[in-house]
Formats: sequence, C-alpha cells, structure tokens
Amino acid sequence: MIQHLLAATITQVSEPNGAAMEMARSRQQELTKPVGALGILEELSAQLAGMTGQLQPLLTPRTVIVCAGDHGVTAEGVSAYPSSVTQQMVLNFLNGGAAINVLARQFNVKVVVLDVGVAADLPDHPLLYAMKIRPGTGNLARELAMLRSEAVAAVEAGIQVANQEIAAGARLLLTGDMGIGNTTPASAIVAVLTGTPVSQVVGMGTGIGLPGWRRKCEAIEQALALHLPDPNDPIDVLSKIGGLEIGAIAGIILAAAAARIPVVIDGAIATAGAALAAKLCSNAKAFMIIGHRSAEPGHTVLLNYLELSPILDLNLHLGEGTGAVLALPILEAAVATLNEMATFSAANIDEKISPKGD
Amino acid sequence: MIQHLLAATITQVSEPNGAAMEMARSRQQELTKPVGALGILEELSAQLAGMTGQLQPLLTPRTVIVCAGDHGVTAEGVSAYPSSVTQQMVLNFLNGGAAINVLARQFNVKVVVLDVGVAADLPDHPLLYAMKIRPGTGNLARELAMLRSEAVAAVEAGIQVANQEIAAGARLLLTGDMGIGNTTPASAIVAVLTGTPVSQVVGMGTGIGLPGWRRKCEAIEQALALHLPDPNDPIDVLSKIGGLEIGAIAGIILAAAAARIPVVIDGAIATAGAALAAKLCSNAKAFMIIGHRSAEPGHTVLLNYLELSPILDLNLHLGEGTGAVLALPILEAAVATLNEMATFSAANIDEKISPKGD
Repeated sequence: MIQHLLAATITQVSEPNGAAMEMARSRQQELTKPVGALGILEELSAQLAGMTGQLQPLLTPRTVIVCAGDHGVTAEGVSAYPSSVTQQMVLNFLNGGAAINVLARQFNVKVVVLDVGVAADLPDHPLLYAMKIRPGTGNLARELAMLRSEAVAAVEAGIQVANQEIAAGARLLLTGDMGIGNTTPASAIVAVLTGTPVSQVVGMGTGIGLPGWRRKCEAIEQALALHLPDPNDPIDVLSKIGGLEIGAIAGIILAAAAARIPVVIDGAIATAGAALAAKLCSNAKAFMIIGHRSAEPGHTVLLNYLELSPILDLNLHLGEGTGAVLALPILEAAVATLNEMATFSAANIDEKISPKGD
Repeated sequence: MIQHLLAATITQVSEPNGAAMEMARSRQQELTKPVGALGILEELSAQLAGMTGQLQPLLTPRTVIVCAGDHGVTAEGVSAYPSSVTQQMVLNFLNGGAAINVLARQFNVKVVVLDVGVAADLPDHPLLYAMKIRPGTGNLARELAMLRSEAVAAVEAGIQVANQEIAAGARLLLTGDMGIGNTTPASAIVAVLTGTPVSQVVGMGTGIGLPGWRRKCEAIEQALALHLPDPNDPIDVLSKIGGLEIGAIAGIILAAAAARIPVVIDGAIATAGAALAAKLCSNAKAFMIIGHRSAEPGHTVLLNYLELSPILDLNLHLGEGTGAVLALPILEAAVATLNEMATFSAANIDEKISPKGD
C-alpha cells in the first residue's frame, strides 16, 4: 500500500514537452538581443516550458518544504552544533525568525516544515506536517541509518506533503532541509553514487575544524565498509547511510515531476535527495532546477555527476531552502524576458550583417 | 567650469562608514545561522551599511541609467551588427521592449537613457537625457576616440544625470550601456589598465567569429601603438581609446559615491567605466557593486585587477544594465536577512559546542 504510492508516482513521471521547449528556443532567436546574450536565462525559459508545457508558466503560488530530521551519527562528533538545535531551529522556522522565513517573505513563498525524524516532540502548528517516521536515524557508522521500510516511508512522506501542497494550489515547489549532522549522510551518498573518495567530498560543514573533518571522514569510511550500500539501489543507500529528511526531499522531487511542476532544489543536502530521486526515476531530472552551488565540495562533485548546473553561486552553506528561494527571481526573469521582449521585426531592428559567427 | 564639476565630485567622495560596517558584521555573528553560512550576503550587508551609514538602507526608488554612444572603430569590422542598431535599440528602450525594460519592470526599477554619443538624431522623450557630446567616437585604430575635453564632458554628463536622478529621489543607481562596437574600447581599456596582452582580454562579443576576433585584436593593437595611452591618466585613456558611454558610466559611479548611495555595475563595458572611476578616485571603489560576471574574458581580468567580485554568474553578455538589475534581489536579501532574522538569544537556540573551528 505504502510502496504503492512511490511506485505509482514514479510511473506518472514522463518526459518534458519537447514541442514547448522548441517553441521557447525558437522565440529566443527572434528577441531583440544577440543570440545567447541572456545566458542561462534562455535555456531556463526553455526548461520551464518543457516541464509545464507553457511558454509563460505560472511560478506562483509556491511552497518551500523544509524537511527536518536528526542524525545518530552526531555521536561521532561530526557537527559543531548539538542535535537539540534541529528542534530549536524548527521552532524558529515556525516562529518566522530564520533566514528561510525572511527570504520567503521577500520572494512570496509559503514555508512549511515536514518533520520526518526530529528527535524531539514538536508542538502542533498549522505550518508543521507531523509525519515523524522515527526520532532521528541510527548512527550510520555503527548501524543502519534506518530500515528499508522506513526509507520508503520517508520518501513517501515527501510525496504526500508535495501532493497536498500541489492540491492546495502550488505551481512550484522548493526543497529545504534542517538536520544537525546531515552533511555527513549527504557526503556519504555522494561518495557512494559517484564513486569519489570520501576525503574529496567532505567539507568543513558548519565549522568543525580539521579534527572534526577527520572524524567525519572516518565515520563515513566506517559506514561504507560496514554496510556496502548498493549504488544502483537508492533505497538501499538511503536506509544504510542516508537521512530521513534526505529521503523526504527525494519524494518531493518525484511528486513535482509527476505533477509536471518545477522543483527548485537547495544545496548539498537537497541535491543528495535529488540524486536518489534521479536514480529512482531518470525522467525526474528534467524537472529539477538547482538553486545554487553550495560551498560544500561534495555538492560540486554531485552536480557534475548529475550534469546539472546551479543558477547561483553565493558561497552559501546554510540549507533550509535558502539557496533555492534566492534563485526564484532568476526563474521569473527567464519567463518574463521570453514573453515580454520585443522581436527584431516588431521593433524594426536590423539583424546581424554577417553570416553567424557564434 | 565643466572640469569643476568632475573635480568637485571627486572631492566629495569619502571612505565608507567603518562603524556601520562593524555593527553589521557583529550582528551577523548573532543571527540564527552558522557564522558565514549566508556567504556573500553577509559581506554585502556590511558593504551596504558602510556606503549608506545604515544597517537597513532603502534600496528604492532606483534608476538604471543606460548610457548610449556609437563607435568609429566599427569601420574595422569588429562587430556583427551595424552601428544603426545603437539608435534602434535606444528606441526599443524608450518603447519598453528591450530586455532591460522587462527586467526593470520585474524588479521595480526606472529606466532612463543617456545619449552621450549616438550617431543619429533621436526624438525627444521624457526618459531620454539628450546630452550628445559628439555623434560617435573617432575610429580609435586610426585617430583619437575623442578630444580630452570631450572625455571630461562625457564623465560630467554621467555625473549630471546621476545627480538629477538622486535629486529626484533615487536611493540606488544602476549602470547600463548600449553601443554597437563597445566591447572594443572596453577591451582596450582593460589591456591598458591591467597590462594584459590584447588577445587575452578580447572575446567573441556578440558573435563575430574568429576572423572578427582577429580584426578586433588588430584594431586594439594598432590603437595602443598609435596613441600610447597613459594608464595613470584615466582621462587620457578615455579620450584616446575609450567610448563616450564608458565615460558617462564612470561619472555615474563617481556621483553615486559622492552621494553615498550604492551603484550596481553591469558587465564588461560598465566595469571599464568603473575602472576609470577608481583611477580618478580610489575611494569610489567602496561604493561599487558588480552585478554579474560577463562572458567577456576581459571582464574577469578587470575584476581581478580591481579586486571586486561579481554577485551573479549567468553567462550573460548583453549589457543594457541587465546584469545589474538581476542582482538587486540579492542585495535586498542581504539587507533583509541582516535586519529581520532572529538572534540566537532571542530564539533560545544553543550555540556551537566546541571552540570555533571555522
């Protein structure tokens, strides 16, 4: 029954609308600018057309779903903050005081929190989806992060919340994360999926210094040796070395793709979820937009592996969905320029003199 | 009298407000996020505080001043478009059909055009500042681009328009450019100021192919050998190998700095103007914000020389001010997060466990 939702969602994902993409690309050639001069805005306008089937898709209303969970691996000393901060930050989100709240107000985005694994009881709140699967993962260095059935449940929690937000009117979704210690499972996932040495994907996280960096690398090495996760079985990877919020993010992305709406993905943690989603369903990749390049080294490794380019590169490493929300004005600019600029013929402007040189 | 305006403006530029910058940086440490996790937004918030003396500066109303001029060097076959397109695009700006108009509407920016050197008569228009100094520059490969007095007049035209917009209420200015052929003077300025070989600063412009690239390099080499511009005399550089709109952009930047308001600078052409402004007045640099990294190779060379980092990198190469306007939401996000986020103590959140490792 539960597995049915994941399988059914994957079945619904199909390819982007090639005809709409072609129309967008062809219109870009007619606009009053040199071909290609709007850089990535031009291709973004075509991608959004491909996802939605429309040259002028609505990108609002929109919701950032901040997926929250705790991590047993913090016992290994991989984070500069105690696990209690996950719960405290969730309350900060619900009270409107975090960076994601400020940015969401600025960019007209609804913030909801999805608790799939916070290691604390949380109060009821209209913006909180209380779908805790377990109170934090196991310590992946020494045990399974979660059972296989829990991994499926985490992905399906993301699908359910995304479907609810879409049913309530959302035309675009954004993913965010909160979970002290979650750069450790994200880095482990990057190492497994891409086959990259652990030391090349692990960064300094939220400020752990060199000793903390060494502990983090060791914890991941230990986990990989202990569990031997199968890179071709994303649920296996998630259950052995993942995070509950990472699974939920994968689910949000699959649900958005199934509904043919764009999903803007935040940095290192969210892209780990995106990589699992792409493994579960290769067509889902066409619906992903990477908001920014995280300062975490593993993020760039994973983006190269996925062949996806981020919109922004602002040296952010906060999570919460901040790097996704900040990219929204660029998406809106891509749609607006495609639809509102004058064409050469309408504006009576001479085109190039010479045969195309570019 | 005219030289008096330039000299007086330079005299008015002073250092940024160090106390306000310090207050912003210190508040960033108290906000509910790891230190540095908001990346360049954190330093941007401090820079804006330094310019304006306020932690929460108004960034609106704002005006993008699109400076337009023609270039005699187009006779050397350096551009894929005929000079007539400069005039046609100015009309497109005034009719609201260009990329800059679409983006300015999206981001709530007023567009005005400053004609300092278009090689055509333009109709009166409420959004057009008609201050033509000459109808296009001379062909820099064979003659002076403009007289020294004309170079000063171009800079002062920029100052006058900026002052008028500021008097009308603008709290932030953005620079834009339009001028077929103007990557040639911009590249020449980069080569002279930074001492970089011409072939390393010249790009493919708006699509000239390899033969056009060679013609462009040769025209610049010829100009440098003919005129020997003095890199320590920015007015000499401007008059010998510059562009009228590049001079005007330098003036806008100086006027903004004198008024202590931020000025957001578009790509390759505008940054050439910014480099001249910085040579005229080193304190002006503190008021400059580089909107984006242009696809033109000379832009990166010049940014490194100026030690300025762009906010966006979207592979744009359009000009008009597009890369400046697109950066505005990031500036607003920097100010909003600084002022609206909860502090650790207000949100009751545990700070780091360990001594700072980052």
